[in-house]
Amino acid sequence: MSFRKAYARTFGPLLSAFSKRRKRDTYNPKREAITAPDIPTVYTIYDYNEGKCERIATDQLVHCMPHTHDTHNTWINVDGLRKEEVERLCANFGIHPLLTEDILSTGQRAKADDMDSHLFCLLPMLTYNQDTGLIHTEQLSIVLGDNYVISFQPDPKQDPFDPLREKLRNDLAPVRKKTVDYLAYCLIDAVVDDYFTVLEKLSDRLEKLEDEVVIKPNSAVLLKITLLRQEIMVVKRAISPVRELVNSFWHSDNELIREINHKYFKDIYDHISLAIEYTENYREVAINLQDLYMNQVNTRMNEVMKILTVVTTLLAPATVIGGIFGMNFDIIPFQHHHHGFIIAVVSMLSISVLMLLLFRKKGWF
Amino acid sequence: MSFRKAYARTFGPLLSAFSKRRKRDTYNPKREAITAPDIPTVYTIYDYNEGKCERIATDQLVHCMPHTHDTHNTWINVDGLRKEEVERLCANFGIHPLLTEDILSTGQRAKADDMDSHLFCLLPMLTYNQDTGLIHTEQLSIVLGDNYVISFQPDPKQDPFDPLREKLRNDLAPVRKKTVDYLAYCLIDAVVDDYFTVLEKLSDRLEKLEDEVVIKPNSAVLLKITLLRQEIMVVKRAISPVRELVNSFWHSDNELIREINHKYFKDIYDHISLAIEYTENYREVAINLQDLYMNQVNTRMNEVMKILTVVTTLLAPATVIGGIFGMNFDIIPFQHHHHGFIIAVVSMLSISVLMLLLFRKKGWF
Amino acid sequence: MSFRKAYARTFGPLLSAFSKRRKRDTYNPKREAITAPDIPTVYTIYDYNEGKCERIATDQLVHCMPHTHDTHNTWINVDGLRKEEVERLCANFGIHPLLTEDILSTGQRAKADDMDSHLFCLLPMLTYNQDTGLIHTEQLSIVLGDNYVISFQPDPKQDPFDPLREKLRNDLAPVRKKTVDYLAYCLIDAVVDDYFTVLEKLSDRLEKLEDEVVIKPNSAVLLKITLLRQEIMVVKRAISPVRELVNSFWHSDNELIREINHKYFKDIYDHISLAIEYTENYREVAINLQDLYMNQVNTRMNEVMKILTVVTTLLAPATVIGGIFGMNFDIIPFQHHHHGFIIAVVSMLSISVLMLLLFRKKGWF
Amino acid sequence: MSFRKAYARTFGPLLSAFSKRRKRDTYNPKREAITAPDIPTVYTIYDYNEGKCERIATDQLVHCMPHTHDTHNTWINVDGLRKEEVERLCANFGIHPLLTEDILSTGQRAKADDMDSHLFCLLPMLTYNQDTGLIHTEQLSIVLGDNYVISFQPDPKQDPFDPLREKLRNDLAPVRKKTVDYLAYCLIDAVVDDYFTVLEKLSDRLEKLEDEVVIKPNSAVLLKITLLRQEIMVVKRAISPVRELVNSFWHSDNELIREINHKYFKDIYDHISLAIEYTENYREVAINLQDLYMNQVNTRMNEVMKILTVVTTLLAPATVIGGIFGMNFDIIPFQHHHHGFIIAVVSMLSISVLMLLLFRKKGWF
Amino acid sequence: MSFRKAYARTFGPLLSAFSKRRKRDTYNPKREAITAPDIPTVYTIYDYNEGKCERIATDQLVHCMPHTHDTHNTWINVDGLRKEEVERLCANFGIHPLLTEDILSTGQRAKADDMDSHLFCLLPMLTYNQDTGLIHTEQLSIVLGDNYVISFQPDPKQDPFDPLREKLRNDLAPVRKKTVDYLAYCLIDAVVDDYFTVLEKLSDRLEKLEDEVVIKPNSAVLLKITLLRQEIMVVKRAISPVRELVNSFWHSDNELIREINHKYFKDIYDHISLAIEYTENYREVAINLQDLYMNQVNTRMNEVMKILTVVTTLLAPATVIGGIFGMNFDIIPFQHHHHGFIIAVVSMLSISVLMLLLFRKKGWF
Ligand SMILES: [Mg+2]
Ligand SMILES: [Mg+2]
Ligand SMILES: [Mg+2]
Ligand SMILES: [Mg+2]
Ligand SMILES: [Mg+2]
Ligand SMILES: [Mg+2]
Ligand SMILES: [Mg+2]
Ligand SMILES: [Mg+2]
Ligand SMILES: [Mg+2]
Ligand SMILES: [Mg+2]
Ligand SMILES: [Mg+2]
Ligand SMILES: [Mg+2]
Ligand SMILES: [Mg+2]
Ligand SMILES: [Mg+2]
Ligand SMILES: [Mg+2]
Ligand SMILES: [Mg+2]
Ligand SMILES: [Mg+2]
Ligand SMILES: [Mg+2]
Ligand SMILES: [Mg+2]
Ligand SMILES: [Mg+2]
Ligand SMILES: [Mg+2]
Ligand SMILES: [Mg+2]
Ligand SMILES: [Mg+2]
Ligand SMILES: [Mg+2]
Ligand SMILES: [Mg+2]
Ligand SMILES: [Mg+2]
Ligand SMILES: [Mg+2]
Ligand SMILES: [Mg+2]
Ligand SMILES: [Mg+2]
Ligand SMILES: [Mg+2]
Ligand SMILES: [Mg+2]
Repeated sequence: MSFRKAYARTFGPLLSAFSKRRKRDTYNPKREAITAPDIPTVYTIYDYNEGKCERIATDQLVHCMPHTHDTHNTWINVDGLRKEEVERLCANFGIHPLLTEDILSTGQRAKADDMDSHLFCLLPMLTYNQDTGLIHTEQLSIVLGDNYVISFQPDPKQDPFDPLREKLRNDLAPVRKKTVDYLAYCLIDAVVDDYFTVLEKLSDRLEKLEDEVVIKPNSAVLLKITLLRQEIMVVKRAISPVRELVNSFWHSDNELIREINHKYFKDIYDHISLAIEYTENYREVAINLQDLYMNQVNTRMNEVMKILTVVTTLLAPATVIGGIFGMNFDIIPFQHHHHGFIIAVVSMLSISVLMLLLFRKKGWF
Repeated sequence: MSFRKAYARTFGPLLSAFSKRRKRDTYNPKREAITAPDIPTVYTIYDYNEGKCERIATDQLVHCMPHTHDTHNTWINVDGLRKEEVERLCANFGIHPLLTEDILSTGQRAKADDMDSHLFCLLPMLTYNQDTGLIHTEQLSIVLGDNYVISFQPDPKQDPFDPLREKLRNDLAPVRKKTVDYLAYCLIDAVVDDYFTVLEKLSDRLEKLEDEVVIKPNSAVLLKITLLRQEIMVVKRAISPVRELVNSFWHSDNELIREINHKYFKDIYDHISLAIEYTENYREVAINLQDLYMNQVNTRMNEVMKILTVVTTLLAPATVIGGIFGMNFDIIPFQHHHHGFIIAVVSMLSISVLMLLLFRKKGWF
Repeated sequence: MSFRKAYARTFGPLLSAFSKRRKRDTYNPKREAITAPDIPTVYTIYDYNEGKCERIATDQLVHCMPHTHDTHNTWINVDGLRKEEVERLCANFGIHPLLTEDILSTGQRAKADDMDSHLFCLLPMLTYNQDTGLIHTEQLSIVLGDNYVISFQPDPKQDPFDPLREKLRNDLAPVRKKTVDYLAYCLIDAVVDDYFTVLEKLSDRLEKLEDEVVIKPNSAVLLKITLLRQEIMVVKRAISPVRELVNSFWHSDNELIREINHKYFKDIYDHISLAIEYTENYREVAINLQDLYMNQVNTRMNEVMKILTVVTTLLAPATVIGGIFGMNFDIIPFQHHHHGFIIAVVSMLSISVLMLLLFRKKGWF
Repeated sequence: MSFRKAYARTFGPLLSAFSKRRKRDTYNPKREAITAPDIPTVYTIYDYNEGKCERIATDQLVHCMPHTHDTHNTWINVDGLRKEEVERLCANFGIHPLLTEDILSTGQRAKADDMDSHLFCLLPMLTYNQDTGLIHTEQLSIVLGDNYVISFQPDPKQDPFDPLREKLRNDLAPVRKKTVDYLAYCLIDAVVDDYFTVLEKLSDRLEKLEDEVVIKPNSAVLLKITLLRQEIMVVKRAISPVRELVNSFWHSDNELIREINHKYFKDIYDHISLAIEYTENYREVAINLQDLYMNQVNTRMNEVMKILTVVTTLLAPATVIGGIFGMNFDIIPFQHHHHGFIIAVVSMLSISVLMLLLFRKKGWF
Repeated sequence: MSFRKAYARTFGPLLSAFSKRRKRDTYNPKREAITAPDIPTVYTIYDYNEGKCERIATDQLVHCMPHTHDTHNTWINVDGLRKEEVERLCANFGIHPLLTEDILSTGQRAKADDMDSHLFCLLPMLTYNQDTGLIHTEQLSIVLGDNYVISFQPDPKQDPFDPLREKLRNDLAPVRKKTVDYLAYCLIDAVVDDYFTVLEKLSDRLEKLEDEVVIKPNSAVLLKITLLRQEIMVVKRAISPVRELVNSFWHSDNELIREINHKYFKDIYDHISLAIEYTENYREVAINLQDLYMNQVNTRMNEVMKILTVVTTLLAPATVIGGIFGMNFDIIPFQHHHHGFIIAVVSMLSISVLMLLLFRKKGWF
């Protein structure tokens, strides 16, 4: 099988991963905001207090109005972001136009904003695609008001909030007894906890590549490590600014985050710090792996060079002596000697052996 | 085709890009200020308030005088910077001589200055040249007074402000209702948004080079990556100090930037941070690409070495045996044997095959 | 012996170290907390003041209640962490649920928390496995109240606190006369002092590898250095956040750490700083070693290439002249000359010698 | 021409640059202070106010006495630093002994000191030696009192202050109307502006080396880049601490620097920041260049290896078949065949061609 | 001479340096404190004020008691640290037990401690061993009280304080007129000044290695550079924390350091900053040197490969044609031709020459 074909066969899936990566959206303020007319906007509203919890799932914006009485907490989760609907919802709640713009633009760095009457943050939710080995990011935006939390997700298919939804249905869960800043904590905590699931997948692939490099190195491994390094960097860049976000909530002097709940954001801070450290660690291990592979290639090349040199050296006396006695001169020493042939062959062998011994003694092999 | 010629053919455009780069101006305080006598200075004045908006385009400095009444906002855009005219305009508006000097010197780092009665900043506008693959920078200077904004551009051909001009003509646009610091925000925002257009081009080229390295590597790719890395660094160095500039406006305690408008500069701050992160990312990807290419060259060399060694090894027995039986001795074993020739040839082949098997078993190939 | 076999023989233990590393727990908030039902929870309680010191070892939680009178200090060491027991113990002492969660989750970064009524920290205890060369980490959690210290260890087999236990039995030891923050200091100090034992082992292995690289380099050394580098990084990452922890206790404004005892934490701060510096140093030495090895491989390859070139060059004239005079033409110069053979052979030798001299003069060898 | 000779011829000037570098003085507190008895100390005194400007050039220390009346500003420039004279001059002006020691010791880092009654700074003046390509540094010390400035230069031959001297003679120049802190600004500004002249030379050499690497690479280029990198680092290290110096004057709360003149030091701050950025940029470009060169050497080696392999491979069948039919057996197949010779030769050629086609199809070339 | 022998001969002294390095003490809190029973503790006491200076050298601890009257300053230098004696001396002066422990443990990072009634610092004294090329460090501890300074040195053989001792005998020296904080300054200043002596030796060796790499590269140079790099790092790590130490004395708000003497510590701060910068510079130069050497090895290998290829190529036609016409067929073209031999030989030569020309034209050589 030719090198090119072998290359294509090994790298086929890898190369298709390459082309898929291009679909990843990067931020561009001049492109249209993310309006996906084919994805209907769905509002899931949780109205709850210690005593009860009502859940409404609707595509009617009219259900999403700010409460004027304090006895209820409200969580509105918006799945699928159509521009006009998001803008009207935000207008209803008095959310600043800059934030509305942020909610509708994808590919941004995680960040937090304090608008006095409401707090805002956006951060990435990560998922790992088992087939392509690629990390997919979805941008979650959260608005925290005095008695409401609104969360915005472009993609309605999945999020890591199911355990939280279950807790909301449970009368004894702390989230039912606490203010909405604790709900915002629960959302961010769920997202950050989910990072470790992705990190574990990266760690698994790294370990597999470690085995490939150490036990059965082959030339595709180099590209695989490069691709994995890039995914590690995608995660690192995505989650690094989350630390600053969490830190600003932890130390926020806005009263929307009650003094007693600050320590919950400290808890997320510990976890996001650990997650970032993991990415740095993985990156370093990947680089070491690359070095180890290349160094093994070099060492192997050294071995092959030595064989080549030994073989060439062994050939030398035979070539020279055979060439000498193969010349067509009338008078050739030993030509008519009874043991001429044997003498020549023995010379060839003994010179080869002597050279090998000499070289070995000189430490060349 | 010779290596040199192939090299020249592939690298022709690249090399011409090299020589063009030299024209790039670097800052030198001892050179004359940028006076381009052949480029006439054109003043475009927008006088506006909520009710109306007047536009004057003129080459007469006399139209550019500070307003003494507060009911109007003024934006003067200066295209083409002749030394005397800029100095007289600045003198009219009481702009500090150090700033005038800054406006007239190109190649500076982006920066902001607070002169109490007016704020100053300068930052680069970037354009990407599709033909040469080079980044061109033009230095934009902005002076923000209490009811005026003056912007200075050396090159009259282009700027990213056309959408803003359209908004100024629209009676309902926020810019018409707000103070001039919002206008200054709009100018800087337009420049920073434009960076992403340039970054997208760099990203496209990077992806093309990725394909070249992974799918069909060739020796020109190395130089292309090096050149692209340099352009990425040009962008990184140009825009990195813009973050500090925007930060100082965001946190400015000068009342020329109204408290209510601070958050707009925070919005730019988010974007410029993202843009800088992109350049760092691109730089890293470019370096990885370079490593991957060189490692593939090494791996390929390893393959070629192995072929060489196999071929040399296969030759060895034939050379030795052929040499032995080609010698001109009177008495040569098997010479007169009926199957002598066949015995010799079979020995050659079988020794070759045995050596190959041996080497393969030893894991050398 | 084949390369593969030699490789396997040399790397056998190394590779088994590789697979064992995978068992290392990394933090994952979605996994069950560390409940090891087969490890019974054992409480060791030291009740002491200047006059007396009582020790109780029990598996009954009922013995672990907070004291209401100030005349006693209490140290409760918990070995083996069963979820329900730890939660009930923590509830008894009013420890915040976030801390209880921390105590029960392994693989976390060292950190400190201030909950006003109690201080909390967790940090790793390190042990070096002589057989595998791997670092094992056990997470120690410490809660410091006004008159008690509780320490939690998942693994009951070992800890570095035996010298401290001996001091507690000694009526004259300072720890008996001082407040419990000094006891907390003693615990952390013992852990940090123990880091140097592990560091010394790493240093010893590094020195052995130095010898291997410089005096008798072989191809297994590369993998050994890579593995050692990874262990060094495990230690570095484990102990680096301990500095911040100690610093926050040193500068704590919580009155649980008395003003007079601050300087003890400063003393640990000095030591942990030194330990971190050691890991950075070791990492750098390991990288240098790797470079040195690869550079020696390159230099050796250079030597082998030269031999190959010399041998090939020496062969050349013999091959050419032998080939020429071995041709079967009717008329061959010198064929019938009396000294034809000698002339040819002397030509071969002299041309070889001349070429060698020429090359040597040109500085190629 | 031999490699060694070619090397010597190319590297002659480079190597002489090497030895000259050793003369560069590094700071050593145990060496004698810089007293050059053969260089006479010359005092150039400018006594000026808005109305008039007197200039005295003398070698008599007696002319250098502090003024007690405020109506005059004084600039004393000292060229050639003899220990006793400098010490007496400093004593006259009440300059702290530590500063006197600093003035007399060369090779120091740029720095500023605030002694309440006077400010002090020292910074390097750079010149580029066109012949050797080396950077020469001269240490300028400046003392700023309430109505005087004293500048000290070890080497009387050159400085960048001639334009300033001209301005002092001009009654309309701002320097004549302002306080002495503005004069200090002018001195430092002239030095920093001069850095850009040196930077431009380095940039020119870098561009030349870029051409050499890309268009006609040769082996001397590597050493040239290494030498240039070292000069770039000399500049970087020399000017980096100047930023801190300028910053401390910009933000100084000593009244010797009038509030109104602070912005002038901000202007220098911008320039020195830019200059430092240039050195960082140049360093990076030089490293990239080195990488590019080495990668081209590697790629070229790869090409040469392929030729070697092709040639060896083409030889193989001829060697084998020629060896086979050259053997001296009685019975050789085709020996007496009419087309035996042609069959053998055609076999040689066709096997060679087939092998080449096979290898090419396998993607080995 | 074999490679191994040459290696051993060249590296003998280097390798012995390797083994000696292992004796270097690293900090280990579990090892016994430095008690060297064979080294007697010697106290040298200087009791001085402006009028007189008494010196006592004794091994009797009883002479070292704190003064209760202010009119005298005391400097006690302790050479040779026996545990009991140091502990009793420290107890006499009320020095905190943590400091006593520090004084008795070697291998620590430089640091400062403020115990209100006394200040403490420890820092390394460096000496360069000309024979082994190794840096030796000795830990100096200094305690500064209100009217006394105590300095502790484990090794009585040498220190850099002789010039200071001379000054103390001189009635006019500033140290006699000032408070003891100035004496502490003098001690630290002497130690820091001495660093430059060591740095100069490293610089000299670096220059020698530069010459070796550029002018006559050989394979031992690589190991020499690696060893030198390690010594540079030893110095860098030893002196880097001294900057923080000096800074904390410079900015100390403890009244033991009088306001008027702060600037003296600023002076040391400048010097230690410069010394650290030197080590960073040396490290970078050493790395560059290593790169340059390896790149030269690569370039040289490239040359050798080309010779090999040229020689192989020149051989090819002779081998092929000689092989063809050496075959034993009955009918061989030109065999009976009068100029057959000449035609064959000329073909060999001309084909060789043509191939060489072709390759050269293709730019392969
Ligand atoms: Mg891409
Ligand atoms: Mg935004
Ligand atoms: Mg995405
Ligand atoms: Mg979703
Ligand atoms: Mg969590
Ligand atoms: Mg949780
Ligand atoms: Mg250029
Ligand atoms: Mg300026
Ligand atoms: Mg323009
Ligand atoms: Mg924008
Ligand atoms: Mg915008
Ligand atoms: Mg900011
Ligand atoms: Mg390499
Ligand atoms: Mg693992
Ligand atoms: Mg936690
Ligand atoms: Mg344990
Ligand atoms: Mg300790
Ligand atoms: Mg201790
Ligand atoms: Mg601290
Ligand atoms: Mg030098
Ligand atoms: Mg000084
Ligand atoms: Mg001068
Ligand atoms: Mg300037
Ligand atoms: Mg200027
Ligand atoms: Mg500043
Ligand atoms: Mg050692
Ligand atoms: Mg200590
Ligand atoms: Mg000593
Ligand atoms: Mg000094
Ligand atoms: Mg001194
Ligand atoms: Mg300081």
